[in-house]
Amino acid sequence: MSNTIALYPLSNFTFSTKESQPEEDPSVQARLQRLQNNYEDYGMRRTVEGVLVVHDHGHPHILMLQIANAFFKLPGDYLKPGEDDIEGLKRRLDERLAPPEGQYDTSHGTDNDWEIGDCISQWFRPNFETFMYPFIPAHITKPKECKKLFIVQMPERKVLAVPKNMKLLAIPLFELYDNAARYGPQLSALPHLLSRYNFIYQ
Amino acid sequence: MSNTIALYPLSNFTFSTKESQPEEDPSVQARLQRLQNNYEDYGMRRTVEGVLVVHDHGHPHILMLQIANAFFKLPGDYLKPGEDDIEGLKRRLDERLAPPEGQYDTSHGTDNDWEIGDCISQWFRPNFETFMYPFIPAHITKPKECKKLFIVQMPERKVLAVPKNMKLLAIPLFELYDNAARYGPQLSALPHLLSRYNFIYQ
Repeated sequence: MSNTIALYPLSNFTFSTKESQPEEDPSVQARLQRLQNNYEDYGMRRTVEGVLVVHDHGHPHILMLQIANAFFKLPGDYLKPGEDDIEGLKRRLDERLAPPEGQYDTSHGTDNDWEIGDCISQWFRPNFETFMYPFIPAHITKPKECKKLFIVQMPERKVLAVPKNMKLLAIPLFELYDNAARYGPQLSALPHLLSRYNFIYQ
Repeated sequence: MSNTIALYPLSNFTFSTKESQPEEDPSVQARLQRLQNNYEDYGMRRTVEGVLVVHDHGHPHILMLQIANAFFKLPGDYLKPGEDDIEGLKRRLDERLAPPEGQYDTSHGTDNDWEIGDCISQWFRPNFETFMYPFIPAHITKPKECKKLFIVQMPERKVLAVPKNMKLLAIPLFELYDNAARYGPQLSALPHLLSRYNFIYQ
């Protein structure tokens, strides 16, 4: 029954704000340069992202961050060298979305842990360039980055604190589907990756 | 470790031919009409297809049937009312690809069973029309067909017998990726659906 996932309504979740979290790199070029520098020191970058699924009126929605009213991304980021995937993803989800200390909502008995489920996708960056693929391209022996997407099983209720320079939006699967033009190849593939699950709408 | 799958080289598999298996319906319109007739008698059609993965020079390839030098499809078909997914898929794979009685290759100790793995995708047909989606569209309470794709773990060696009116082709993931124009939305999504597996190339 591991293919069955309970989804709770969007209205069960409470959204607050916290301090801005500016981008680490001022440009795409700077980001790729830092990737290259870190590769020389530590090898392949490992990135983890969380797919937080809720429902609205019985249709699955994914919680995504929008930055500067422009591009969308999943919560998550790169790991420290040697860091465990799951522990690192929890750390990155806390950094991005956990309320500041002392503002946890414990009234519903929820702690602030994250329940990390299956890895649903891996993306590989073959070169120090922007494109990634959901497989290791032929003749590439040393990818420069591997990004793993994990499903995150949302509890019945939770408080999420969103950095002030970002929005957290619930995007329906039908909006993402076949819409790489707006969401890019990674996010528009999410409906495919989630299709094997039978969702129970609570 | 269920995310790890051993792949064997395409050259390990032996392909023979068997009698033609003509299409059950003479046209798309006739197929949709039969779907509607059967829906009235038995409810939602349940279809199962197998994703048979091998490798060639360390890149995953999927075995697909090509009909009339035109469209591609996975082996599999609709189930009988009440038939079990896994048993039904084995029956449909046998119909399509098992050698005729007495021609099994037992020299390598392989029996002719199929090892069915995870369900990797579900597609829903909301109406008696050609389009399908990897989710149940909003406001659709009774889909007319549900198609499940299962990964099939290929043994080290196997003999497959292909109906004379079809070809069995090994299509690399990089050819399918981002290529809905040629392969359609279902087959071009396979690289995404397989990306969470770590393949071991034997």
